[in-house]
Amino acid sequence: MVVEMEVNNGENTTNNWVPIMKKLHMNVIGEKMKKFQKLTCRTIWRVGKEDPRRVIHSLKVGISLTLVSLLYLMDPLFKGFGSNAIWAVMTVVVVLEFTAGATLCKGLNRGLGTLLAGSLAFLIEYVATKTGHVFRAIFIGAALFFIGATATYMRFIPYIKKNYDYGVVIFLLTFNLITVSSYRVDNVLKIAHERFYTIAIGCGICLLMSLLIFPNWSGEDLHNFTAAKFEGLAKSIEACVNEYFSDEEQQKTKENSSDLEDPIYNGYKTVLDSKSFDETLALYASWEPRHSRHCYRFPWQQYVKLGNVLRHFGYTIVALHGCLQTEIQTPRSVRAMFKDPCIRLSGEVAKALKELGDSIRYRRHCSPEILSDHLHEALHDLNKAIKSQPKLFIGSKNNTNKLTLATVISKGQSGALNSRRVSLSSVKTDTSALLDWKSKLRGGSSTTHENLKLRPTLSKIAITSLEFSEALPFAAFASLLVEIVARLDLVIEEVEELGRIAHFKEYNDDDEHHVVVEIDKKNSKPLPNQLPTQDSGD
Amino acid sequence: MVVEMEVNNGENTTNNWVPIMKKLHMNVIGEKMKKFQKLTCRTIWRVGKEDPRRVIHSLKVGISLTLVSLLYLMDPLFKGFGSNAIWAVMTVVVVLEFTAGATLCKGLNRGLGTLLAGSLAFLIEYVATKTGHVFRAIFIGAALFFIGATATYMRFIPYIKKNYDYGVVIFLLTFNLITVSSYRVDNVLKIAHERFYTIAIGCGICLLMSLLIFPNWSGEDLHNFTAAKFEGLAKSIEACVNEYFSDEEQQKTKENSSDLEDPIYNGYKTVLDSKSFDETLALYASWEPRHSRHCYRFPWQQYVKLGNVLRHFGYTIVALHGCLQTEIQTPRSVRAMFKDPCIRLSGEVAKALKELGDSIRYRRHCSPEILSDHLHEALHDLNKAIKSQPKLFIGSKNNTNKLTLATVISKGQSGALNSRRVSLSSVKTDTSALLDWKSKLRGGSSTTHENLKLRPTLSKIAITSLEFSEALPFAAFASLLVEIVARLDLVIEEVEELGRIAHFKEYNDDDEHHVVVEIDKKNSKPLPNQLPTQDSGD
Repeated sequence: MVVEMEVNNGENTTNNWVPIMKKLHMNVIGEKMKKFQKLTCRTIWRVGKEDPRRVIHSLKVGISLTLVSLLYLMDPLFKGFGSNAIWAVMTVVVVLEFTAGATLCKGLNRGLGTLLAGSLAFLIEYVATKTGHVFRAIFIGAALFFIGATATYMRFIPYIKKNYDYGVVIFLLTFNLITVSSYRVDNVLKIAHERFYTIAIGCGICLLMSLLIFPNWSGEDLHNFTAAKFEGLAKSIEACVNEYFSDEEQQKTKENSSDLEDPIYNGYKTVLDSKSFDETLALYASWEPRHSRHCYRFPWQQYVKLGNVLRHFGYTIVALHGCLQTEIQTPRSVRAMFKDPCIRLSGEVAKALKELGDSIRYRRHCSPEILSDHLHEALHDLNKAIKSQPKLFIGSKNNTNKLTLATVISKGQSGALNSRRVSLSSVKTDTSALLDWKSKLRGGSSTTHENLKLRPTLSKIAITSLEFSEALPFAAFASLLVEIVARLDLVIEEVEELGRIAHFKEYNDDDEHHVVVEIDKKNSKPLPNQLPTQDSGD
Repeated sequence: MVVEMEVNNGENTTNNWVPIMKKLHMNVIGEKMKKFQKLTCRTIWRVGKEDPRRVIHSLKVGISLTLVSLLYLMDPLFKGFGSNAIWAVMTVVVVLEFTAGATLCKGLNRGLGTLLAGSLAFLIEYVATKTGHVFRAIFIGAALFFIGATATYMRFIPYIKKNYDYGVVIFLLTFNLITVSSYRVDNVLKIAHERFYTIAIGCGICLLMSLLIFPNWSGEDLHNFTAAKFEGLAKSIEACVNEYFSDEEQQKTKENSSDLEDPIYNGYKTVLDSKSFDETLALYASWEPRHSRHCYRFPWQQYVKLGNVLRHFGYTIVALHGCLQTEIQTPRSVRAMFKDPCIRLSGEVAKALKELGDSIRYRRHCSPEILSDHLHEALHDLNKAIKSQPKLFIGSKNNTNKLTLATVISKGQSGALNSRRVSLSSVKTDTSALLDWKSKLRGGSSTTHENLKLRPTLSKIAITSLEFSEALPFAAFASLLVEIVARLDLVIEEVEELGRIAHFKEYNDDDEHHVVVEIDKKNSKPLPNQLPTQDSGD
């Protein structure tokens, strides 16, 4: 208002800016709005593009709602059900979920809860009707309190919380509705009957929609998600080892940027965070009717178990990734010596993981050969490579210097951390940095707590100035790689267990037969060059 | 029936067993029932004992339901609201949650959804009333389809899913109720009004109950849970390092039993699985009114960030735990040499973690001293210990044996895995086991896939028979310990950030003043014996 008045007057020169500012402000708001609009549109588009089934599900919900509302909108149908038809609409809104398993789980929970609550409510009404009006109110109130508290307490029991949480809520809802209504309405039984029919119709439409028309199966999702996890882990390991041996120094800058675009991080992230997702999918999948050729109870819990093992496998990859990000680094030239065997080993592990993922994806047993043969050759190559470089781990040959693990350089200066290069024989005292740091700390301890912020950087220096710092990291890296191979066995065990329980088909597929032949051919040779008998290091 | 008849006849001797079997069967069932009863009772008791607030919450729900049912049961109140009072009961059942934040989140979502849906429904009714009866039905059907599909699609957008999922469901529910009802009922506006009032009363009772009477705060839970995580991690690290250096051989048997009772596993498990729990609590906490002395927006997201950092810290502990479980083990006598510094280092890390946990628990900044000083001394001690044992890492002194990392024994026999003991100079060829394994594999590859089961064990043999196997693990263990110290800095950074944003009080508390004095006194000494200047290894 004030602004408008001043614009109309146009007298005050100092206020000439106001309309311009206002215009600018409007422009900024307009731009922001446009930006926001664009972002919203892109988000909406991406959500649909990521998984087109979401669009189909939305349309399904729309169609179901329209169908169920016909009960109310069409005269002949309305005469049959009356205003209770509204309960069918409510049921569809609440029960129809994305996957068939979730819909079944919710629908059956709702049905069970309603039935139980109905029976109990009529029992209580039967007792209550025999008494006077006032006593009846007290009785109903007491029943509400008792059942309400008990049902709520039941929801804390883990087993019920996991499987029947929604059912208990519906039980409580229906029980209260019927019990309270019964106080005023005489023909509660008739109303309950009608409601039950309309709810059943609503549930029926939901089941029809979710089971028969473009159904989404939780089990299918869980299956594909599990297969995809293997691929993510395989990519992670390969990227991790490649980055460890990459010649570029860009690594440092990458590290500082967020982890979000990191292919290594992306690979194992989904595996690490999959626990609750897996469990929910397995729970819903257990409600789904088996849609396989065989008639057995599908082992969804085995997928959860496999997920646990994969998560443990993932932790080792995180530790391997930690070797890339740690402050203490083995010099690049040292690493280069072990580049080939390590990359080969990681490649073999990745191949094995991919094969495991494929075997799950195509529901077949995994190839009995490629999982172990090349892998162990790669392991032996790594062993050979480490043995062929004995100097590195002993230090320089002259006996005056006995510090085995510590002969690699350790420049104690704080600024030189990133620029340090290899010079295998120069051993400096590492105490200068620590003394530096100590004096700084002591000087600061009497002042305020502001210099707490300094500590992290300082302790990094202290760690990097330790003498064992540069020999250990590669040992850890190699050890973790070997550990990954060891854990791979546990993963293979679980996958085989899954294949056994879920009756996966045999490996010798037609489309992959040439692979088998190739391996058989390879296997018939004695593989002399890959066995470690002629080991040069011995 | 058949059984009963035969009991009555008593003629057929072969069937004399039937009543006994039946009795036995009944006994078994009775016993099972008793067992089940006992188990159920124990579970119910445990649920309440674990968190007595659950009992209180259950009673609160019972009281709220009784209170809200008075609207329907008491005549003067019923005259005011009529049968719409039932909606207040429904609201209480659905909205009243365990913590205040969750109740507020659900209540406000419900309110917002209802209001939005009401406005939109009346807009559509306004358009629909201007048309004929048949066209109106079509219009309503189309609106239901369009709004239903759009709202469902919106639920897939991550931001809405996270914050307003329940609100969208309620929006859809209310919109459908009003729109469909408006086709048959004339005074929808009046009904909607009354319903809105009763829903508001229901929400009011819920808020009263959850905010004022024994309130449970999500923020408080998140706070305590975060502090407890530190303690768990501290216990985990200490237990892990202690077990690594323990002299007993029981370790192996422990390993085979389930991980569930393992103190190491229990310590980090809650941290690793905390992601979704943290995020839910932080979401609810962000809805809670601030109940702190200062009037600022409490940084719940910082708790989530801290949780992420702690989870990453936890992964390193998992890797450390992996060193205990791996097939390739450094001999016990070798480990014993590094026992003291490692245990001291882990003790310092655990102390630092406990201090961090306490600082969060008591909402104060953490002590500026104990976090780094002793820690780095312990680091240097470990360094010293490694340097003082150069022989171990070079191998035996005679030059004929140049395999540095590999001079520790490697018995290639498959059965002797667990019984192997240290003999530092005996080097055997490691190929025998592998050749063994290869021939077995080749022999089996032509037969069925049954022998897939053999592979895991075989590959374990292959790994343990590698020559680098026994020197690397300790290097990895030490490196991971150092890595843990490095990561501790990241944790400290986040805790300090949290302390800054959340305005934690200063460290110099009265009750902990003596600790500060002690440290100051210690710090004024030059600490000659703990600085690595007189390093014997140099």
